[in-house]
Amino acid sequence: MNSPHQHIHTDLPKDDSPILVEVWRGNMVESRHRAIAAVVDADGHVVKAWGDIEKPIYGRSSIKPLLAIPLVESGAADKYGLGDREIALACASHSGEPGHVDAVKAWLAKIGLDAGALECGPHYPYYEPAAHAMLRAGETPTRAHNNCSGKHTGFLTTALHLGDPIAGYIRYEHNVQQRLLGILEQMCGQNLGDVPRGIDGCGIPTIAIPVGHHALAMAKMADPKDLSPARAAASARILKAMSLEPWYVAGTGRFCTDVMRVTGTKAAIKTGAEGVYMGALPELGLGLCIKIEDGNGRGAEIVMGHLLRHFGIIDAAQAEQLQQSLQPTLRNWAGTEIGSIKPAPALSETAPF
Amino acid sequence: MNSPHQHIHTDLPKDDSPILVEVWRGNMVESRHRAIAAVVDADGHVVKAWGDIEKPIYGRSSIKPLLAIPLVESGAADKYGLGDREIALACASHSGEPGHVDAVKAWLAKIGLDAGALECGPHYPYYEPAAHAMLRAGETPTRAHNNCSGKHTGFLTTALHLGDPIAGYIRYEHNVQQRLLGILEQMCGQNLGDVPRGIDGCGIPTIAIPVGHHALAMAKMADPKDLSPARAAASARILKAMSLEPWYVAGTGRFCTDVMRVTGTKAAIKTGAEGVYMGALPELGLGLCIKIEDGNGRGAEIVMGHLLRHFGIIDAAQAEQLQQSLQPTLRNWAGTEIGSIKPAPALSETAPF
Repeated sequence: MNSPHQHIHTDLPKDDSPILVEVWRGNMVESRHRAIAAVVDADGHVVKAWGDIEKPIYGRSSIKPLLAIPLVESGAADKYGLGDREIALACASHSGEPGHVDAVKAWLAKIGLDAGALECGPHYPYYEPAAHAMLRAGETPTRAHNNCSGKHTGFLTTALHLGDPIAGYIRYEHNVQQRLLGILEQMCGQNLGDVPRGIDGCGIPTIAIPVGHHALAMAKMADPKDLSPARAAASARILKAMSLEPWYVAGTGRFCTDVMRVTGTKAAIKTGAEGVYMGALPELGLGLCIKIEDGNGRGAEIVMGHLLRHFGIIDAAQAEQLQQSLQPTLRNWAGTEIGSIKPAPALSETAPF
Repeated sequence: MNSPHQHIHTDLPKDDSPILVEVWRGNMVESRHRAIAAVVDADGHVVKAWGDIEKPIYGRSSIKPLLAIPLVESGAADKYGLGDREIALACASHSGEPGHVDAVKAWLAKIGLDAGALECGPHYPYYEPAAHAMLRAGETPTRAHNNCSGKHTGFLTTALHLGDPIAGYIRYEHNVQQRLLGILEQMCGQNLGDVPRGIDGCGIPTIAIPVGHHALAMAKMADPKDLSPARAAASARILKAMSLEPWYVAGTGRFCTDVMRVTGTKAAIKTGAEGVYMGALPELGLGLCIKIEDGNGRGAEIVMGHLLRHFGIIDAAQAEQLQQSLQPTLRNWAGTEIGSIKPAPALSETAPF
């Protein structure tokens, strides 16, 4: 297994996670989000960083673009005739809207399986109107409604193609997960055999990898010059699928979707639980990783939006169009404007645009 | 207006909010919550503190016990024959379960009004089975379902009793809110005319007051020795009502409810949005205020639970009974145990039990 240990280093102070996001109510900051953030190129050079980027974090769903690599690289996607929508779904934390669930079911049918083969737990759709419609119709969620059902279908597709048993594909010891561990080692430049690990919301392992090395993996996807031809092609195809089918990566009103609709192929971004966000910027050959110390996703979105603006992926006119994503106005139950969420000085002053 | 400015001071380092809570996944801390916390007596002596307790915060719903004072002190509660349940509801962020909504509607009927007089916005019940039952029945939420509907009904009751106009009772300039501002000034020992303020989720003003001074107000409710007889009696009655009817303060499975069911009249505790928690401990004459820097309520619960354990309000046997509240096990969608939330060393080592 090709897993050279690469070192990512910055001379920036690393004792802490600086406050990068402020939540305002009235004329006072009510809450604050601290974050570690790294912007890295494919050679591991740190272009921009806040906090201790050598600190290991769980990448959670933000690494789904990396987890989709075997699906494409192995030839499984081609064998089953998968298009951008399926590949985007393999990278998705989708909102469980009917279009997402139907596409997952159709894909499962293509490979001769159904939702019963998925090993993720069921939950109501994240998209509230879809959840409410199901409740009004007396329906209960299936495993296909799980926001990770596309990723799981990708795992099943790869397993079938490579002749792995499909049962137990979420377990750390299973070929599917061991293959992914090898890919993470190569892309992140870390030996991962003995690092801390946990179980993700959908049952698969989640592996502790430093923030900077997560950003490195994203940079290698964005600028695959040193990857094998098959991995380079898979990386490019995955990022393009996300950018071209952003609704399949998240859903209606979601930050990933709304931003990629505007940025197109300039950015592929992916949220993760507990305040993680990652992105790949193919035109600039950069990778991004953000971890909010406290795990709150609202903070990660603000940092991601600001960095995309800083690096010119979002221009001034687009920023206006994305105003409610980049600097959301907060409203109470009666619809009254009560505050906003915005970049804190440590972010806006060191990375102005 | 009797509002002597009191000074609360601690020599503890106050440059930061220390990490008091850790969220574990597998064998690594995944996220961390920083907090300011103060335990104060009715004379303003700081018994225990973490972080900068002189920092102003919005008390949000945690100050509802203070906001219920005029309802009792004015004689309005007695005039309309209100019992512990209504007074508990006046202090509640209830879950919108049928029992909560029915009690609010019955109370509104007692004062000759209906949910149309409430100026809070409607939202589905926090208690998921109640929300799902409404959706299955094709029902939409009313203002009575708003978690603050009891507090608002208390405001209306007081306004009617004192001859204030009822329309606009949520506005800063209205008699109801100005009366509450005076009570906050006296109880918190702060002049509040010029401090930052915002609008709360239910439309009423929320006022910036230092953490230590919020704790002082709670301590004065717990130990009302220096309050006027009417305010002392109101304070005691409010805390007792919360302790004796904890389901009406929050609801099924909620931290406030589950803990007060065990602690009885030893503690009256109240959660608030954006990671605020306050409590009054009548037997010890202490007040508590906690603010999680990032606004996450899961952190505030852990700090509150640990402090109650530390001060002996929860004993060892009760702690076992409350295990899932004090140190929750985290599970994923499939029900697999994936981690836990617990006090960080800065909390558990400086306040052991």
